[in-house]
Amino acid sequence: MLHPVILSGGSGSRLWPLSRQNQPKQFLALVGDHSLFQETVQRASRLDGVQPPVTVCSEDHRFMVGEQLQEIGVANGGILLEPVARNTAPAIALAALHVLASDADGLLLVMPADHLIEDEAAFRNAVTAARALAEGDWLVTFGIHPEYPETGYGYIRRGDALNGAGYRVQSFVEKPDQPTAERYLAEGTYSWNSGMFLFAARRYMEELERHAPQIAAAARQAYATAQRDLDFTRVDKDAFAASPSDSIDYAVMEKTDHAAVVPVSCGWSDIGSWSSLWSVAERDEDGNRYDGDVISIDTKGSLVRASERRMIATIGVEDLVIIDTPDATLVARKDRVQDVKAIVDQLKAAGRQEHLFHRKVYRPWGNYDSIDMGDRFQVKRIAVKPGGTLSLQKHHKRAEHWIVVSGVAEVTCDDKVFDLHENESTYIPLGSVHRLRNRGTELVELIEVQSGAYLGEDDIVRLEDVYGRS
Amino acid sequence: MLHPVILSGGSGSRLWPLSRQNQPKQFLALVGDHSLFQETVQRASRLDGVQPPVTVCSEDHRFMVGEQLQEIGVANGGILLEPVARNTAPAIALAALHVLASDADGLLLVMPADHLIEDEAAFRNAVTAARALAEGDWLVTFGIHPEYPETGYGYIRRGDALNGAGYRVQSFVEKPDQPTAERYLAEGTYSWNSGMFLFAARRYMEELERHAPQIAAAARQAYATAQRDLDFTRVDKDAFAASPSDSIDYAVMEKTDHAAVVPVSCGWSDIGSWSSLWSVAERDEDGNRYDGDVISIDTKGSLVRASERRMIATIGVEDLVIIDTPDATLVARKDRVQDVKAIVDQLKAAGRQEHLFHRKVYRPWGNYDSIDMGDRFQVKRIAVKPGGTLSLQKHHKRAEHWIVVSGVAEVTCDDKVFDLHENESTYIPLGSVHRLRNRGTELVELIEVQSGAYLGEDDIVRLEDVYGRS
Repeated sequence: MLHPVILSGGSGSRLWPLSRQNQPKQFLALVGDHSLFQETVQRASRLDGVQPPVTVCSEDHRFMVGEQLQEIGVANGGILLEPVARNTAPAIALAALHVLASDADGLLLVMPADHLIEDEAAFRNAVTAARALAEGDWLVTFGIHPEYPETGYGYIRRGDALNGAGYRVQSFVEKPDQPTAERYLAEGTYSWNSGMFLFAARRYMEELERHAPQIAAAARQAYATAQRDLDFTRVDKDAFAASPSDSIDYAVMEKTDHAAVVPVSCGWSDIGSWSSLWSVAERDEDGNRYDGDVISIDTKGSLVRASERRMIATIGVEDLVIIDTPDATLVARKDRVQDVKAIVDQLKAAGRQEHLFHRKVYRPWGNYDSIDMGDRFQVKRIAVKPGGTLSLQKHHKRAEHWIVVSGVAEVTCDDKVFDLHENESTYIPLGSVHRLRNRGTELVELIEVQSGAYLGEDDIVRLEDVYGRS
Repeated sequence: MLHPVILSGGSGSRLWPLSRQNQPKQFLALVGDHSLFQETVQRASRLDGVQPPVTVCSEDHRFMVGEQLQEIGVANGGILLEPVARNTAPAIALAALHVLASDADGLLLVMPADHLIEDEAAFRNAVTAARALAEGDWLVTFGIHPEYPETGYGYIRRGDALNGAGYRVQSFVEKPDQPTAERYLAEGTYSWNSGMFLFAARRYMEELERHAPQIAAAARQAYATAQRDLDFTRVDKDAFAASPSDSIDYAVMEKTDHAAVVPVSCGWSDIGSWSSLWSVAERDEDGNRYDGDVISIDTKGSLVRASERRMIATIGVEDLVIIDTPDATLVARKDRVQDVKAIVDQLKAAGRQEHLFHRKVYRPWGNYDSIDMGDRFQVKRIAVKPGGTLSLQKHHKRAEHWIVVSGVAEVTCDDKVFDLHENESTYIPLGSVHRLRNRGTELVELIEVQSGAYLGEDDIVRLEDVYGRS
């Protein structure tokens, strides 16, 4: 059986301000209606004889993974939570152990959640070829046919042919300088290292035991003592933290004598920056890509993205990236977008929030958006999904007014429980124990007006929580 | 006596998106804390022996003029409302008639509301010189010493000297082409036509009768039948509309044999575009002017203006103008900002609102800001000034929830009148007659949540209004 393993560990500073630490790029709909994570899952789900995907992600993103899987109606093969980041070798080990628990001969198709593949047929053919090799005990990496001398990727040099579509790996090579990259391109035996793999879970663990036994041991220990929590498998933090942090390339692929490469040309991109999104996006005849409400005059070669309820007008500009979000706008020269990281570093150093969260914050029960704020008040638009339940909570320093604007909310306030319909309101006095719940089948939206001397998110006492957050 | 006359008729498309039809550039704080209108009024008020200013403005801006005068604590010499725009000659005639009604020998110092003057001492000296000439029956225009060969202004050529500081006007000349402008600059006898004037009200009307009798007659008729409405003098619409539309330059100054010019070098600018604002603003060593929350890397020669609760980040850009407002952001090359007008034209043609109003809308009683909007609801933050009273009104298609977040609001709802304090709320059912009033001395702020199938501003029946809007 083939088990897709989706590695969703990206931190997402390179596509700021659209990506935030709390919502990295794999969860954004950058091209089309679905997020890169959802597209990755769907692409995998359309393969022949495939099992539900196993996702490895951080604690912080667990509810987003769950929600995005639910949105596309894909069955969940397991969501493994990394308590700390330890790079890809330990993450894949967790997935391998998870699959081995139910399928001793299971094959893993490992895919980063944030890559784009335009030619799905080519990808599928490559998977078929890789699968045949993996069944013959090879650890297969997918090598992307290089289209230009990129210096930002590692390369794989192929050796002897193994079957019609695969080769022994002769060597993995580091990110080259420009002349070296040009030579690789000219020689024709090099591929980009895509970070996608296909191998038997058993074979991966065998090679990991051999070449990185500490990682294998830590992963086994962490997985063996993992706790099941709703849809999530939360591995043991101390055990997992004991693992060395290392990539699959270093820990296994460069060391095993069973590394194979299947070259593929499938319109692959890792969308590592705004300029790479621009280059894979459909553009108008002046080379512009506009998303949202954009009015432009004499604009060329630019990527412009407006956010909801806002418009962007451009005049006479060229080769710019303009990304608007509710609380921050980026205007950058397209060939300087790698410096977005430096902006994020400045935000971090200043102790700000704009690199961590969007104004709209996702929670397991839905989301809230801080639509206004003043001296002693804050206004939030709160959306509660069907079935969603906020924690039973109280605040020491603020009272709240709730006005339902769509759906039917079940409100608990101290010893009363009652329904609140559209155009009805209630008052939650300071200190009262309260809860909000959506028992219906449509979204509940309400406006919350907070009033008080202190309005920080940390003024919350959670008495009960169905999502294990109390 | 010297009577400042502030011409506040600008329409304000050139500084979009900060300026809107409903809030043109004279009402914006572009440099410093006060608006250009307020700075113009204050500058005039600091002259010796000066009377309270007379303002001529359009109906649409009357409350903003009143509020901005109040803010700076300047007594009001009259706010004359133009029911239709007829250019400067008729507008100044209204002001002349207004002054003549109480001061037969009154002198008018005519100033556009949207100009910047950096060297107030130089301006004051020029006024003194002009005043001496005006007392000798001259109609004086202020000629700005040209600093570069501007092709966007008309020029004034001086003739014989009249006193130490003034000259006969030899001729007014149209906007020149580049070589002509360079010649004017080289010859040294030309000044920019600033649109500022000083003359006796009586003399202006005499010359207007002589050279543009239809304008004079229409203005006399319109002023004679004007209605007093609160602080405002509303001239008769039909009578005023009968006036030809003409500038004081064409109608009077170019024709009279009593035109004089007082050249002055006072750091004058008409801030006719974003690039001219950039050139008069203080800038950092890289030539950037930042207002608000801006983070930048390798940025040069740019004007960047962030709006409240939002940040702008720039990377590697040069000579850009970036202007952010709550509903629209402009990104333009600095030498292309004259095309802002074309953007405004596109907005007009598309029947949009972003050229007419800001998200925050000013009313005589205060303002409201549409902070959120959904399918069947809208959320507004409403501020009511001390003494402010909204109209007694009702809505056919929406109910409203009010939550007071600061101050004490007096609420009328059908037959009940009651006070609402901070952290208190009330419900205004659909169809009920209601009113909101601030009897206190501090600002009242409240959050209004509207709920209903139709939420347009036109669903309002005004039963009573203290500002004459019912």
